[in-house]
Amino acid sequence: MNANDQFYARDARVDDAAVAPLPNSRKIYVEGSRPDIRVPMREIAQSDTPSSFSAEGAEVNPAIVVYDTSGPYTDPAATIDIRRGLAPLRAVWIAERGDTVELDGPTSTYGRARLVDAELAGFRFDLKRKPRVAKAGGNVSQMHYARRGLVTPEMEYIAIRENLKREEMLRTLPEIVTRQHPGQSFGAAIPRVITPEFVRDEVARGRAIIPNNINHPESEPMIIGRNFLVKINANIGNSAVSSSIHEEVEKMTWATRWGADTVMDLSTGKNIHETREWIIRNSPVPIGTVPIYQALEKVDGKAEDLTWQIFRDTLIEQAEQGVDYFTIHAGVLLRYVPMTAKRMTGIVSRGGSIMAKWCLAHHKESFLYTHFEDICAIMKAYDVSFSLGDGLRPGSGFDANDEAQMAELATLGELTQVAWKHDVQVMIEGPGHVPMHLIKHNMDEQLRLCGEAPFYTLGPLTTDIAPGYDHITSAIGAAMIGWYGTAMLCYVTPKEHLGLPNKADVKDGIMAYKIAAHAADLGKGHPGAQIRDNALSKARFEFRWEDQFNLGLDPDKAREFHDETLPQHGAKLAHFCSMCGPHFCSMKITQDVREYAAKLGVSDEEALAKGMEVKAVEFVRKGAEIYSKA
Amino acid sequence: MNANDQFYARDARVDDAAVAPLPNSRKIYVEGSRPDIRVPMREIAQSDTPSSFSAEGAEVNPAIVVYDTSGPYTDPAATIDIRRGLAPLRAVWIAERGDTVELDGPTSTYGRARLVDAELAGFRFDLKRKPRVAKAGGNVSQMHYARRGLVTPEMEYIAIRENLKREEMLRTLPEIVTRQHPGQSFGAAIPRVITPEFVRDEVARGRAIIPNNINHPESEPMIIGRNFLVKINANIGNSAVSSSIHEEVEKMTWATRWGADTVMDLSTGKNIHETREWIIRNSPVPIGTVPIYQALEKVDGKAEDLTWQIFRDTLIEQAEQGVDYFTIHAGVLLRYVPMTAKRMTGIVSRGGSIMAKWCLAHHKESFLYTHFEDICAIMKAYDVSFSLGDGLRPGSGFDANDEAQMAELATLGELTQVAWKHDVQVMIEGPGHVPMHLIKHNMDEQLRLCGEAPFYTLGPLTTDIAPGYDHITSAIGAAMIGWYGTAMLCYVTPKEHLGLPNKADVKDGIMAYKIAAHAADLGKGHPGAQIRDNALSKARFEFRWEDQFNLGLDPDKAREFHDETLPQHGAKLAHFCSMCGPHFCSMKITQDVREYAAKLGVSDEEALAKGMEVKAVEFVRKGAEIYSKA
Repeated sequence: MNANDQFYARDARVDDAAVAPLPNSRKIYVEGSRPDIRVPMREIAQSDTPSSFSAEGAEVNPAIVVYDTSGPYTDPAATIDIRRGLAPLRAVWIAERGDTVELDGPTSTYGRARLVDAELAGFRFDLKRKPRVAKAGGNVSQMHYARRGLVTPEMEYIAIRENLKREEMLRTLPEIVTRQHPGQSFGAAIPRVITPEFVRDEVARGRAIIPNNINHPESEPMIIGRNFLVKINANIGNSAVSSSIHEEVEKMTWATRWGADTVMDLSTGKNIHETREWIIRNSPVPIGTVPIYQALEKVDGKAEDLTWQIFRDTLIEQAEQGVDYFTIHAGVLLRYVPMTAKRMTGIVSRGGSIMAKWCLAHHKESFLYTHFEDICAIMKAYDVSFSLGDGLRPGSGFDANDEAQMAELATLGELTQVAWKHDVQVMIEGPGHVPMHLIKHNMDEQLRLCGEAPFYTLGPLTTDIAPGYDHITSAIGAAMIGWYGTAMLCYVTPKEHLGLPNKADVKDGIMAYKIAAHAADLGKGHPGAQIRDNALSKARFEFRWEDQFNLGLDPDKAREFHDETLPQHGAKLAHFCSMCGPHFCSMKITQDVREYAAKLGVSDEEALAKGMEVKAVEFVRKGAEIYSKA
Repeated sequence: MNANDQFYARDARVDDAAVAPLPNSRKIYVEGSRPDIRVPMREIAQSDTPSSFSAEGAEVNPAIVVYDTSGPYTDPAATIDIRRGLAPLRAVWIAERGDTVELDGPTSTYGRARLVDAELAGFRFDLKRKPRVAKAGGNVSQMHYARRGLVTPEMEYIAIRENLKREEMLRTLPEIVTRQHPGQSFGAAIPRVITPEFVRDEVARGRAIIPNNINHPESEPMIIGRNFLVKINANIGNSAVSSSIHEEVEKMTWATRWGADTVMDLSTGKNIHETREWIIRNSPVPIGTVPIYQALEKVDGKAEDLTWQIFRDTLIEQAEQGVDYFTIHAGVLLRYVPMTAKRMTGIVSRGGSIMAKWCLAHHKESFLYTHFEDICAIMKAYDVSFSLGDGLRPGSGFDANDEAQMAELATLGELTQVAWKHDVQVMIEGPGHVPMHLIKHNMDEQLRLCGEAPFYTLGPLTTDIAPGYDHITSAIGAAMIGWYGTAMLCYVTPKEHLGLPNKADVKDGIMAYKIAAHAADLGKGHPGAQIRDNALSKARFEFRWEDQFNLGLDPDKAREFHDETLPQHGAKLAHFCSMCGPHFCSMKITQDVREYAAKLGVSDEEALAKGMEVKAVEFVRKGAEIYSKA
């Protein structure tokens, strides 16, 4: 038994609830131009419409395909072993580009030290593979390839993934399932068919990013940009006072099961390095971090003792582990710090406050800003994307859209241009706490100042008066800003401001944000977005309870709620529900109306008037029969 | 022991959790121009800012006054006895107007029958008071008084209530608590001081309603209109398969405790009459119903057997019990019904489907439409307000804003004019299921077609894919439509589409909707709305944990979440929280920044540059001290 076996002896498969396929769902893989491009999706099977609902007899309801972030965990054919990590599906693509070299091992001072620390042997992930890096002076970023006209397997994978078999569904499903309202897109332009070339072009322009570190070959490629599906991020991570490695790995698998498109590991406690390694090796989604958190741990929490050397070593350490994007608060400039002094809540970003403290202590610009091009050099050697942090984001509605916030945003725009000069991928972080009527200004300014780099916002929370419910205060703002054009929404859990989220909180946060992201896709008129809504509404109308549960974001919760009132199996086949009871169902009555109108011919007003009397008699007779059954 | 004693022997005070005052809160009463106008509010006390947070030493944080819908239940000085009902605080005002007469007893056939039914003796509420009605041909509606220039005690009460001691708070609280962003009001015009005359004028114009049946003198006057605070409604009610009278009364007190401004009793099961009586007698908020539900029970669920006589008797029965507003689906016209045949989800409104069925069965316009003026005559005799039901509202995003929905809305506009001709108060119900980008059209059309009568919407739900989370899918839409001008938001609970809400669901629905309503008030720039946000943010920034909990919508939940990670009492006094741990707190670091900038003088850029070096040394020394404590 090696170290990993011992560490994970208890639950090598994580818990069963996190790996079972979702109800009535099966993992499908859509193959690309080469056999190793196999894009996972989830297909939700449906039951037939009973013949009582249609004059033409029973109707087949085709399976609905939905986006799947859960990786191999929900594939019964996959062997899951947390101790070995996921299969490195991108390894061949990375290697065959021939622009990287394999290192002997970690090159960071810290990474090397952790590797030989005997005390860590008990819980160190035992990675057999060596880290890779770009050949000297090289650039392995997807943006670099894109700008040189290269369509990578990652880009093709993403095109297939974003298309979600939409064309097939639009062509084969009945019109009532495929029809959707034209959207209001605020300038986004989403094609009905996403081609690999479109992906390449969006990445080349900087309007989208593919966060895919070459040292995280286990990750399934995905894209963040406003001409694609709106994505969500889930934060996990321990702190000095809470949580273990086990729990964090479980939170990661749990988060991706329910739809997290990326996961940020915000750990600040001990063993950050080892926790992160376990998470990355087992994560099918890109992992983001805030490297300054770990750098601060290395100087015992003394912000003023931070140095460029320590930070640089941390970047390399994490890049060689495979972190896909780094939040870097390089826009916190010395002259902006005093702008926060009259705020209600000062600087609430941890990274922002660390850098502000450093700037004040040394009375000079932060090393993140002065060494920004050096950082770019690291980012492009591993393809780590920037998530330019909004260190001066408002921590209360009072501080929303203030001078400090907007000044920093302009600097993030300048830094975006610098990163793009190096072909390094960039997204921009946004607030925070913003009342509804001030949200759009954030989006408009971000697009204007940051050259349309993808926006990645935390909420925003639309009011400050509901601690314990900030997943809701912020889902309102998130849906709105997603509609306006934000590419990824960072979730907020019910524990925000109060404590660290447990698994239940993680799920609640994800559900609120899946709702916000999907509401935004509908608002934008994302092609095909309404298919799932329509399919679920049709199931609801036809009393296909199981289908209604299964097409929803959380089949378990829907079933549980239904069964609280009507637990019997028969109730799930019943043509009524607990809200109204068997004698009193509006859906049931509507069926009568529909049948009636169908016979009548809805477009012929004259016939309607003429035929009414005859039909009325017929209707009463028929209605009486219907009711006698119930 | 009489019947009521027996029925409520177990828990005459409802449960303790529902009657204790909220933490650190006290009920205050603001007296009006006469001693019996005593307007309840909740005052939340705060602790002082510790001297460590301010150069000037400890700072007193004044109490914050918030709107209070909980009635006498949260007043320790009040004697609560469910068997006796609440005190009839408006009885004198109603009597002294001299325009009503006391009846011998119920005048409806059904009301009389229930009163003498021996089988009901065990659980009939024992009301000693007789019902009242307007003198023959009279009109006792608040709109009628308003149009004649009369400012009623109800109007004065409402003016005081809506003002919430705002002027005093704006005058006495520090600027950081009172400052707010200018709003974006979409045409609403809310004065900083609401005068009784303003209330009268808004009611006279039909832009606001005061739902206050003369037979519900226990209710505390409140107003629904877009130039006032956005209100929320909570639905309760049993069905044939679930729930008892006890449970419904408890849900009502529970709902008002957490902020329901009105409660609709949507019972459809047995003993509707008795359930409603218990609810009304104990309700401090207006009660709404959908009388057609009960009428349908009277004809054993056969919609086609409904008659004007049965419906009329039901209206009188309920008006004499004290129902404050009736949902009446009088806009479901025969010619609109076939418009729903091609819908995804047909007619989802129960009332709408009943009337559609009736119209089709009889091939004529519904008695609700043909007898609309007769209904007005009943409404004005008791001052029952119309809530004109949207029987053809969409039940899915697919059906949003369709021909049927908009046709009915236009008819509701016509009926509004008819009701106003009789000086009867009207609000208009709205959807339902509407994607974000189609929401504003609903508000615009409602204002245009219905003469600015208050809009009262159910959500709307912005996506259909989240059964189990529809309080969130709909809170997004509710916040938006509230911002655009909707006056009252009908809550949706997590059980929507799945089952009847229990107490936990009622609370979850209310919280989501209190958030939506308040976010809307902030967006509109409702004067003073941001005071509570600011006070809570200040408490948060100053680590006054107890104040942060208590100023929130749900102090219990906030405290519970906090204590999950850090249960010790000491943690609630700590200058850090579980998210970051003691060494790593952005709020803590911000304090340093603020102190630093304060010494520096934030407006003097030159001094900033010059003084930086000296200050930097000082800062490091000070910072080191701060950290050595932790």
